[in-house]
Amino acid sequence: MNYIKNPPQTDWQQLAERPVFNYDELVDTVQNVINAVNLEGDVALKRFTKQFDKVALDDFEVSAEEIAEASAQVSEELKTAIGVAQSNIAAFHKAQNRSEDFVETMTGVSCWRKSVAIDKVGLYIPGGTAPLFSSILMLGIPANIAGCKEIVLCSPPNEQGMIHPAILYTADLVGITKIFKVGGSQAIAAMALGTESIPSVYKIFGPGNQYVTCAKVLVQQRGIAIDMPAGPSEVLVIADKTGNPAFVAADLLSQAEHGADSQVVLLSDSNSFIEKTLEAIKEQVEALPRKTIALRALGNSKAILLESLDACMAFSNLYAPEHLIIASDFAEALTEQIQNAGSVFLGNYSCESAGDYASGTNHTLPTNGFARNYSGVSLDSFVKKISFQKISREGIQNIGKSIEVMAEAEELIGHKNAVTIRLKSLNDV
Amino acid sequence: MNYIKNPPQTDWQQLAERPVFNYDELVDTVQNVINAVNLEGDVALKRFTKQFDKVALDDFEVSAEEIAEASAQVSEELKTAIGVAQSNIAAFHKAQNRSEDFVETMTGVSCWRKSVAIDKVGLYIPGGTAPLFSSILMLGIPANIAGCKEIVLCSPPNEQGMIHPAILYTADLVGITKIFKVGGSQAIAAMALGTESIPSVYKIFGPGNQYVTCAKVLVQQRGIAIDMPAGPSEVLVIADKTGNPAFVAADLLSQAEHGADSQVVLLSDSNSFIEKTLEAIKEQVEALPRKTIALRALGNSKAILLESLDACMAFSNLYAPEHLIIASDFAEALTEQIQNAGSVFLGNYSCESAGDYASGTNHTLPTNGFARNYSGVSLDSFVKKISFQKISREGIQNIGKSIEVMAEAEELIGHKNAVTIRLKSLNDV
Repeated sequence: MNYIKNPPQTDWQQLAERPVFNYDELVDTVQNVINAVNLEGDVALKRFTKQFDKVALDDFEVSAEEIAEASAQVSEELKTAIGVAQSNIAAFHKAQNRSEDFVETMTGVSCWRKSVAIDKVGLYIPGGTAPLFSSILMLGIPANIAGCKEIVLCSPPNEQGMIHPAILYTADLVGITKIFKVGGSQAIAAMALGTESIPSVYKIFGPGNQYVTCAKVLVQQRGIAIDMPAGPSEVLVIADKTGNPAFVAADLLSQAEHGADSQVVLLSDSNSFIEKTLEAIKEQVEALPRKTIALRALGNSKAILLESLDACMAFSNLYAPEHLIIASDFAEALTEQIQNAGSVFLGNYSCESAGDYASGTNHTLPTNGFARNYSGVSLDSFVKKISFQKISREGIQNIGKSIEVMAEAEELIGHKNAVTIRLKSLNDV
Repeated sequence: MNYIKNPPQTDWQQLAERPVFNYDELVDTVQNVINAVNLEGDVALKRFTKQFDKVALDDFEVSAEEIAEASAQVSEELKTAIGVAQSNIAAFHKAQNRSEDFVETMTGVSCWRKSVAIDKVGLYIPGGTAPLFSSILMLGIPANIAGCKEIVLCSPPNEQGMIHPAILYTADLVGITKIFKVGGSQAIAAMALGTESIPSVYKIFGPGNQYVTCAKVLVQQRGIAIDMPAGPSEVLVIADKTGNPAFVAADLLSQAEHGADSQVVLLSDSNSFIEKTLEAIKEQVEALPRKTIALRALGNSKAILLESLDACMAFSNLYAPEHLIIASDFAEALTEQIQNAGSVFLGNYSCESAGDYASGTNHTLPTNGFARNYSGVSLDSFVKKISFQKISREGIQNIGKSIEVMAEAEELIGHKNAVTIRLKSLNDV
């Protein structure tokens, strides 16, 4: 980690910048995939699956037998852990389901909103050696609570044409019935456009590599909503002398092991705290199976000494981290100052891993500074909020004149007439 | 209007389609504007303002004197009407500000969410002969309730270098302090990138022509959020024999007068109702100042006879209208069936104009089928919901094992260690 002591505030903007990733190079490649899936459907999917995933598939859909077999392969210990996470995530997301009041804005003029599930949603889960079943919990559980009628999941097959048992087990557990062995940008294209086997959906969620992200951005132009634009994962830790350097080191490493492009930032008002933490990182990194990745991520990472916790909060708000850990006994006193962050972890025992897996909060969060203008995934992400109004005879008499005057001032006489004709009919009675 | 009687369900998809607008032709033009604003700042804004708005401006910011003068030019009658709308819109949007519960998902594991305003937002209000001050109410009022610190408004000047007094009056009324005389795609570029005079913002809202919409889509790629992709305005009316043909005709015309590309759809289970409504349209359209526009919109519009109100609801859900009017005494009984709509108007006295101006609901709504996957603008649009968690010593002991097991199964040992090191420290005590 680069250690920067007391940088002048004029340097903060630059220190808060992320590496810029340019999608332009990928656009042509990904657009070609999308166009091919649009034209050829399953034929294109088969070709891309052979090309990219090195396996020839006749049928993309995972069968009931495969799911039953998968369940038998997942250890009881892991099933219990997944069950705990499922219960906590369900509890937290159910609590987000709050009905709103009817508001009678004037006598006879009632307005309200109602949450209605997005009918059809698609979840993308990346492949690779490690099965990211936790993302299925984070997306499938709220989709189910929202009441989405069709929940489609795509994940790439391995060279044996299989999906990892933990993924199939978890998908089945949270009620996903349509699981397809398709990955990469072709999976995004398939869920956006529909093919013979894969139904089209209205909104696509889930993590993925640069090709997947690029495809999600491109299908937006065809009217498909996406969860959010995704970049490399990030953590920013604010710690003071009441923090624990070994804990903070472990938290920074847990982010660094994600990928060489992971963003890891440590802020403190204490030079000795930072030095102890850097020492602890050096020690702990040795034991990590993903040590090489973690070391590359740390090479681009920063520890910054600032004059006070308030200054740390100000820098954090400028940076707008995906994850913000406040490793201090005074964490709660600082929460009022938080303007921009995806998910916040307060105190010495709230590690990011808890939110990544099991505490109940969602781990699909805005990266790359998007915490300034986007929320993480929640129950809200799976519904539309439809507004309703009911105006009575008395109501239109109360509000009519105001509408007429405003419509006339905007020179929209048809808008005015829609009121006038109603008022007139009531006066004629 | 084209009158289609009892189309087979196989034709519905095609009947529900909108004209496709291709932005590709605009992209180069708009991208050049964005690049110029990025490179040259105010110099580019001045050049484009001279070119497109036919006026040479030295200074873009509206002065306090201009606002005071504008207020003097707005009639008391219009001020009163705007005041009624302001009060209703504020009441409805304040009611959306609901705090959520703390959820203790396990003993010692507390999770909650908090709404925090997006710091800096930009509102775009189109120019033209009629001043669209109602959109300022719909965007400025929730921005203020949310607590956005900086609210910037851009609107094009006329050839005298002025903005319509009703726009300035309304902007001032709802507490917008930074108003700039800049329009078109250059205004969107300025709010996205910032110039010497115009501050950059994190999210841009507001209606506009195709160039403005294209610019909003393009600045998204630079990390700026937008309210939603916008298309031509739409209304779908479902009516039965208990509806009033003259009222429905007036509602359809109020949508048709928006623009030649407006989408107007009438569904009914009654042939005689549709025939009476078509007659009423013929009569009423004659009196409209925007008759030519309305007639062009009606030329592309459809009245469809279906076998039942249930069938009408099914078609409406397929179409996913921006505005849905249910002109029937039985409107409320149908609401449970509504899956896709932006804003719904129930019964014979709930005209769309009410929601456009004054009843309290927002008029910035998803068009072009986006009601399937997007909500309209609300208080939610101006905040991020940040998740928080606080885990106690007891909490990490309750949840720790599950996290360790899941992290290990995902082969993320750094994630596991962040828990293990904490559990170990507690056991060592």
